[in-house]
Amino acid sequence: MGIFQRFARLPLKPTCIWSLCPQYSTDLTAVGRALIVRSSQLIQHRYVHNRGLGTGPGNPGSAPPRLPFSRVTQEDLAFFRTMLPGRTITDPDLLKSSNVDWLKTVEGNSEVLLRPKTTEEVSQILRYCNERNLAVCPQGGNTGLVGGSVPVFDEIILSTSLMTQVLTFDNISGILTCQAGCVLENLSNYLEERDFIMPLDLGAKGSCHIGGNVSTNAGGLRLLRYGSLRGTVLGLEVVLADGQILNCLATLRKDNTGYDLKQLFIGSEGTLGVITAVSILCPRKPKAVNVAFLGCSSFKQLLETFQCCRGMLGEILSAFEFLDASCMSLLEKHLKLTNPITESPFYIVIETAGSNATHDEEKLHNFLEEVMTSSLVTDGTVATEATKIKALWSLRERVTEALTHEGYTYKYDISLPVEKIYDLVQDMRGHLGDRAKNVVGYGHVGDGNLHLNITSPSKDPALLASIEPYVYEWTSEWKGSISAEHGLGLKKRNYIYYSKPSEAVALMGSIKAMLDPKGILNPYKTLPDNIH
Amino acid sequence: MGIFQRFARLPLKPTCIWSLCPQYSTDLTAVGRALIVRSSQLIQHRYVHNRGLGTGPGNPGSAPPRLPFSRVTQEDLAFFRTMLPGRTITDPDLLKSSNVDWLKTVEGNSEVLLRPKTTEEVSQILRYCNERNLAVCPQGGNTGLVGGSVPVFDEIILSTSLMTQVLTFDNISGILTCQAGCVLENLSNYLEERDFIMPLDLGAKGSCHIGGNVSTNAGGLRLLRYGSLRGTVLGLEVVLADGQILNCLATLRKDNTGYDLKQLFIGSEGTLGVITAVSILCPRKPKAVNVAFLGCSSFKQLLETFQCCRGMLGEILSAFEFLDASCMSLLEKHLKLTNPITESPFYIVIETAGSNATHDEEKLHNFLEEVMTSSLVTDGTVATEATKIKALWSLRERVTEALTHEGYTYKYDISLPVEKIYDLVQDMRGHLGDRAKNVVGYGHVGDGNLHLNITSPSKDPALLASIEPYVYEWTSEWKGSISAEHGLGLKKRNYIYYSKPSEAVALMGSIKAMLDPKGILNPYKTLPDNIH
Repeated sequence: MGIFQRFARLPLKPTCIWSLCPQYSTDLTAVGRALIVRSSQLIQHRYVHNRGLGTGPGNPGSAPPRLPFSRVTQEDLAFFRTMLPGRTITDPDLLKSSNVDWLKTVEGNSEVLLRPKTTEEVSQILRYCNERNLAVCPQGGNTGLVGGSVPVFDEIILSTSLMTQVLTFDNISGILTCQAGCVLENLSNYLEERDFIMPLDLGAKGSCHIGGNVSTNAGGLRLLRYGSLRGTVLGLEVVLADGQILNCLATLRKDNTGYDLKQLFIGSEGTLGVITAVSILCPRKPKAVNVAFLGCSSFKQLLETFQCCRGMLGEILSAFEFLDASCMSLLEKHLKLTNPITESPFYIVIETAGSNATHDEEKLHNFLEEVMTSSLVTDGTVATEATKIKALWSLRERVTEALTHEGYTYKYDISLPVEKIYDLVQDMRGHLGDRAKNVVGYGHVGDGNLHLNITSPSKDPALLASIEPYVYEWTSEWKGSISAEHGLGLKKRNYIYYSKPSEAVALMGSIKAMLDPKGILNPYKTLPDNIH
Repeated sequence: MGIFQRFARLPLKPTCIWSLCPQYSTDLTAVGRALIVRSSQLIQHRYVHNRGLGTGPGNPGSAPPRLPFSRVTQEDLAFFRTMLPGRTITDPDLLKSSNVDWLKTVEGNSEVLLRPKTTEEVSQILRYCNERNLAVCPQGGNTGLVGGSVPVFDEIILSTSLMTQVLTFDNISGILTCQAGCVLENLSNYLEERDFIMPLDLGAKGSCHIGGNVSTNAGGLRLLRYGSLRGTVLGLEVVLADGQILNCLATLRKDNTGYDLKQLFIGSEGTLGVITAVSILCPRKPKAVNVAFLGCSSFKQLLETFQCCRGMLGEILSAFEFLDASCMSLLEKHLKLTNPITESPFYIVIETAGSNATHDEEKLHNFLEEVMTSSLVTDGTVATEATKIKALWSLRERVTEALTHEGYTYKYDISLPVEKIYDLVQDMRGHLGDRAKNVVGYGHVGDGNLHLNITSPSKDPALLASIEPYVYEWTSEWKGSISAEHGLGLKKRNYIYYSKPSEAVALMGSIKAMLDPKGILNPYKTLPDNIH
């Protein structure tokens, strides 16, 4: 056990991941968080109106002209107030936090926020809006990164924040059903008391809603182990644009009776219907969790370590993440985090989760001995205790936060064949030369998902013109995805053709037209302008 | 290790699962198998024309009137022969095996079978058929159980049997892409040589095609561990009804760019498009496999054993299956199999698959000690060696075969909340009394999937009238699925309303109309007659 013990003894300096970042505080509901955002002048200055996105009005990520929806009248408000007394919000101060995304890059001008509690209320709202040709922006925890969860103009905001009931939980099958507005962390806590966990975990878990997670097909930290929501979501209840309630809320692992309609609403970002309830298959809570933080001298060796890891850790591997040396420098510089191991070009975070602590530690020990002996890994440390695990994870999770201190950050969320993911970072460095302050890469190796971030002292249209479409063309050439887990929302809708052929996009347009003929649901999102 | 060793010493009498069943022989391609079926007078007598399904023409499972499609002309045949020389089959003898399903309960009268090799050829066929209003029945290995894979009338059979190329395999990510006609077992063998496995396994693996597996959203024996094809299938290439090629053949674990169109074609039984290529995420090959065969004195104890098992075997549990004492009697009576343990009301097959044999055996030992000490399990045996594992599995897998010796079998494939699955068997026994010869239950406890089988000496319309709609109403009352993994095909299409609300079925009809306006693709299947 020599290596294992030596690893475990290496020093760690844990700090709270989100202590500087109230938007992501894990003990706040979306409403509570919204109030903090509203009152924080410190972050208000970072607001950028959506018209300022990208390089200007001609940029594919900027807002298109407003579509000819009706405008909200006093009669409309009177109708809503009768239906939702005390839950029809029109105070501009209260609305502000729901009008802006948490990156502060997209801001709408909605004048009314509705807070239904029941599916029937959502149905009545949509039936009315569809008849009146009023556009609607469904909103969960408003933690999205592509401007999908906020209005672009004056769309009515339909919030799931009061739809917070757990409906059923079956502790034999592990199947949970709940309303769409349940905060992910609340569900996690509910399940942990019953010896289960949610099959997904995100940094935003303290705010994000399960309905939003499903609408955006959220990936997160457990995807490598438990798969995507397309497999774990067993049923959905959805309200269609015309107010019709579609009940596909099955709680069955297997059901081959007709087309699987719920899949249409997973990842379609609220453009095809409003998810009101979810049933989801939850795994047993693991009895043991270990985290290893390792250094590699090349990305090639990192990939070899990944292969070795999958073979030797097998069924207990639950995460394989990486960051590069540039990320580590930013963590040290801006957040004063300490690198727990010797300096390396690349760092890996490996998590195991299993049902037998002794077996898991032995597997991890054998793996570490193998990768150290074969010099794939140059140094490392291991944590088995919760606070130390959290500290090691923070080195991966706080990279985003460290980047915000660098000035302006151009962010890309790319899927590629795993062996290509770091080539994009290196090619981008060569391509940009000294025009960029930093070009850094981190992300989910296990999922082939790179977070490429490029910083400059301030917003720099010339730099952006060098990055795009280069980054999208590069991704397209390797048959990658220009949005691995963040979705398209407003910001990336017009880039869809880099990852999908025009026949596929046209078919998406037909599906949209079939389910929402007036286009009232989350307009200007997901689909490109030329098929709206 | 006392219990573990005692278990391992118990006697076993293995026999080959499929030795009496040429349809399922694992070393035959679909074509080879078809020839055997054609030449076997022994099984020819069991052919039942589709008009004879159920209780007669009024039965919801029988064929509807032929729709007004064009009939195949000499000009059509000339066109096909020019496009597919030597691969346009019109010899009635060669056609016969493709016109009948392997249960011999549905037989069509197609006069032409086409065998394209490329996606482009499939595209040309469908473009032509769509223009000519010719109906098409896509066919893979023709191993389906609900009459979905054979023509009902004179539909042109479009076989994927010559589309057998593996296109790419990435041994870092484990992602395989291949043509739709690859036989599942061939893919398994290809992957095993590369230290990977397919995420699904079926009894029909020697014949079934991956394209058919995906089109029917096949479940099988590994679903408990690796999840459904909705999660493991990463991309599809599909030819639409009008011949348009839809390329969604991504090889990425994560891709959130627009709607996930491939999901439309998973499980839609060839009614929305013809799958021509598949990309699929494959797990590493486990280094150790164990199988335990256990006896329980009640279904309540079986369920408690399942809960204990999930906790103690955790991540290495790969199957938890059951059969009742009636099944065991039939195995002993008709197949001369020996029960390896003392007689019990219920029997369980548990499989573990993991990366460390010592750890797996220790987990299994601890679990067995726990369930024996607490008297949840009354007796059991364990196998770690391949032939013994196969022998234990045969006790579960050969129940279907044993049933065929009982006379006529009414078969139901039901999903229910796991705690309810055996109640249906017991209630059905009480309901039918001595009108049924046998009412037996077996299936996938881990997936909440019951195979309910009711036998009578011969076909018995009065018995059927007692079973249906009782079985469907019972299932519907508990929010179950009337087809867990077999699909709806021809036989069950009109029962869809027992598991899906009318709004959902109507939306399925709209999707069908959008993608296949003339309805040429696999008509009379999946959707009920009243929305065709």
